[in-house]
Amino acid sequence: MKKIRDILPNRVSTEKEDLFCYGFDASSTQGIPSAVVRPVNTEEVSEVAAFAFKHEASLIPRGAGSGMTGGAVPLNDSIILSLEGMNRILDIDEKNMVVTLEPGVINSHLQKKLEPMGLFYPPDPSSMEFCTIGGNVAENAGGPRALKYGVTRDYVLGLEMVLSDGRALSTGVKTHKGVVGYDLTRLIVGSEGTLGVITKIFLKVLPLPEEMITLLCTFSRLSMAAQAIPKITASGIIPRTLEFMDHEAIRAVESYKSVGLPLNVEALLLIEVDGPHSSVSEEAEKIASICTSLNGSVSVADDIFARQRLWEARRAVSPALYRISPTKINEDIVVPRGKIPEMIQILTDIAEKYNLKIVNFGHAGDGNIHVNIMTDKNNKEEYQKATGAVKDIFEATLKLGGTISGEHGIGLTKARYVEMELSQVSIGLMKAIKTVFDPKGIINPGKMFPPD
Amino acid sequence: MKKIRDILPNRVSTEKEDLFCYGFDASSTQGIPSAVVRPVNTEEVSEVAAFAFKHEASLIPRGAGSGMTGGAVPLNDSIILSLEGMNRILDIDEKNMVVTLEPGVINSHLQKKLEPMGLFYPPDPSSMEFCTIGGNVAENAGGPRALKYGVTRDYVLGLEMVLSDGRALSTGVKTHKGVVGYDLTRLIVGSEGTLGVITKIFLKVLPLPEEMITLLCTFSRLSMAAQAIPKITASGIIPRTLEFMDHEAIRAVESYKSVGLPLNVEALLLIEVDGPHSSVSEEAEKIASICTSLNGSVSVADDIFARQRLWEARRAVSPALYRISPTKINEDIVVPRGKIPEMIQILTDIAEKYNLKIVNFGHAGDGNIHVNIMTDKNNKEEYQKATGAVKDIFEATLKLGGTISGEHGIGLTKARYVEMELSQVSIGLMKAIKTVFDPKGIINPGKMFPPD
Repeated sequence: MKKIRDILPNRVSTEKEDLFCYGFDASSTQGIPSAVVRPVNTEEVSEVAAFAFKHEASLIPRGAGSGMTGGAVPLNDSIILSLEGMNRILDIDEKNMVVTLEPGVINSHLQKKLEPMGLFYPPDPSSMEFCTIGGNVAENAGGPRALKYGVTRDYVLGLEMVLSDGRALSTGVKTHKGVVGYDLTRLIVGSEGTLGVITKIFLKVLPLPEEMITLLCTFSRLSMAAQAIPKITASGIIPRTLEFMDHEAIRAVESYKSVGLPLNVEALLLIEVDGPHSSVSEEAEKIASICTSLNGSVSVADDIFARQRLWEARRAVSPALYRISPTKINEDIVVPRGKIPEMIQILTDIAEKYNLKIVNFGHAGDGNIHVNIMTDKNNKEEYQKATGAVKDIFEATLKLGGTISGEHGIGLTKARYVEMELSQVSIGLMKAIKTVFDPKGIINPGKMFPPD
Repeated sequence: MKKIRDILPNRVSTEKEDLFCYGFDASSTQGIPSAVVRPVNTEEVSEVAAFAFKHEASLIPRGAGSGMTGGAVPLNDSIILSLEGMNRILDIDEKNMVVTLEPGVINSHLQKKLEPMGLFYPPDPSSMEFCTIGGNVAENAGGPRALKYGVTRDYVLGLEMVLSDGRALSTGVKTHKGVVGYDLTRLIVGSEGTLGVITKIFLKVLPLPEEMITLLCTFSRLSMAAQAIPKITASGIIPRTLEFMDHEAIRAVESYKSVGLPLNVEALLLIEVDGPHSSVSEEAEKIASICTSLNGSVSVADDIFARQRLWEARRAVSPALYRISPTKINEDIVVPRGKIPEMIQILTDIAEKYNLKIVNFGHAGDGNIHVNIMTDKNNKEEYQKATGAVKDIFEATLKLGGTISGEHGIGLTKARYVEMELSQVSIGLMKAIKTVFDPKGIINPGKMFPPD
């Protein structure tokens, strides 16, 4: 580590506190790096990579460390390459609706910068107040608005990346279309920081929708809420969001920050429509009538404050759950939309079978449910049951034609389950692609692939 | 070839006529294959691939042969693997809005099947009446509606593919989200048939928009039409289509099939908005007022017949141009939207400089212009001038931040220009990825990469 300090004396830390702080993320995994490097430009990233390549040291690219699966957690003795200092929005081209930025830009900072210009960057992970766009790209982050607007992948036009040996790579285009060569851009999006270090991002943005209406629909019966979901999406309306919270999720939020959600219901849907002034109220009415026909009770967020309060409540679910039990095993399965009612029933059955508390919420509109098994790592017996439940949940998900991760990725925590979904042929190709980008295997090793 | 006939006796042809017919596509390139194989299921594709792998024979996957850059044109002595017989729509899951189909399904057949169900598959290449979805996936086809709805890539959820050695690969998901492993699906989309043979496709579809309005806006001055384009997209409306035709394109269509387009204008825009009934007329009015403020003259297609007539006219441009001159060099550059007026001026200047007829039309809304240099291959001097003009056009495009292909891909015809856009680092990675999928280099060789 002396040598890397020789190269970038002002960017390297080996302080104990830093090594600890940069050792974990929002998953329950942890490691201790040997150094933390905070480069401020592409050249410095390149120098660090060249150093790591030469000395075969592992390099862990890191944004805000808000990932849910340990993607930014170092194996011991790795170098953390924190991109938080590369946080400039370099250009907002209003005419062409293209934004150029560095990876360390916080998601909500970009959103707030764009709004007054009448522009809109849809991807809105619940961690948007602190997660970085670079991390969003690495994980292909989604969020509530993915239902109508798609995920991070759908907004990345091009990238600049430093490869493991320090060479720079440019991918993609700065236009809204382009088909020259293989789509390296979208190969890198969602690659969980395993192919290189993203140093610049070109994003497509949209015109800000004219208006939106936010509906809170509560259901005294869970099964009715579950039925409402595919009914709404089948009605021809694609809401901007169609979020789901079960009773436990509601209770957790209310005890964490009291926002006035009703506690006497089994589930709620938080639904938002957006678009031209003339059409949104019509769509909101249609949705309300579907919900009331299933015995739901509908209220409209009257002003921006009411709206914000509801979204704060939704975004608070994840932190709030830590109040229920010391450990939460947080999965983010996806099933085909129409299978949501069936999956909700299966989750209830699994909770009963293992006598575990399972809290469900998430982006129900696109079939993406955040399943949280509430447990205690130190209670060995219970924790083992929880692990058994995870396997059952994944098996049921795949049987319904789903996937074991819609947003969070594989990282460390899901690595051992990858082979349940991906074939050996597929994993073999992916490993070979990894070797093409990173022949020495030094970039974020041990992630995404099944453990040897 | 005797041996491959032994394996699939009823699927192989070496008839002279077949070898000729399967030797070209919509580009002006041509080759003569050694055999044409028409498998009807994945197992047969697998057998052919295993045969080719063993004997190191080149295999050229082919849909309808409607590609514009020679992507399906065989090098001499290759085996054409025509997928036209694998043309079944296997499943339309209305509830989940997911379609499963074989690669040989014709684009418009799918569209027509979906519409009565209230569903919508947006990608609409001008060749939609005869091109296949498999070809669309291989080339990442766009079309007029890409402006609002994106390209083929945005609708492919997952794929099944036979690899060069005959093994089967499954990629992606059947849900609207999924982030498990590298995104092989989107690596394959747009790979121009060079990574393997696509045998099954999972597509996301949308609810059919409630209503649409089609506007024809004509301009006596080209520069005014060019200015209208970024003005409309900057107004906050994203039309479903924003198509452009210059005077020569209009004239060519009118002489090919008289549809009543005005001949006394320098350019026209064909604009369509769609969405809920309540908002489309408002949007159409806004667009009309932008066009009239630039001295455009606006008319509305009153009924479905008027609408169809306009779209037939638009789709007829490409075939109509063959009437003007024996050879057309057809490029599909993209520039950032706001640079359209500048690019149109540059094209006018280049036409003048080389004393060539250049006809421009295309998807102006997303900056994608189809530039057609009208020439005669047999007039050596003129053809050489035309080749010089192509290079000038690409240079100007890249200087404006654009790309040399928005839809058509590289294939054979653009291979020699790839290095103008892609770096050696990028090409090196792409070639290595190609080798991962196709170690013997037998799948569609000679395409997409710069010639050695």
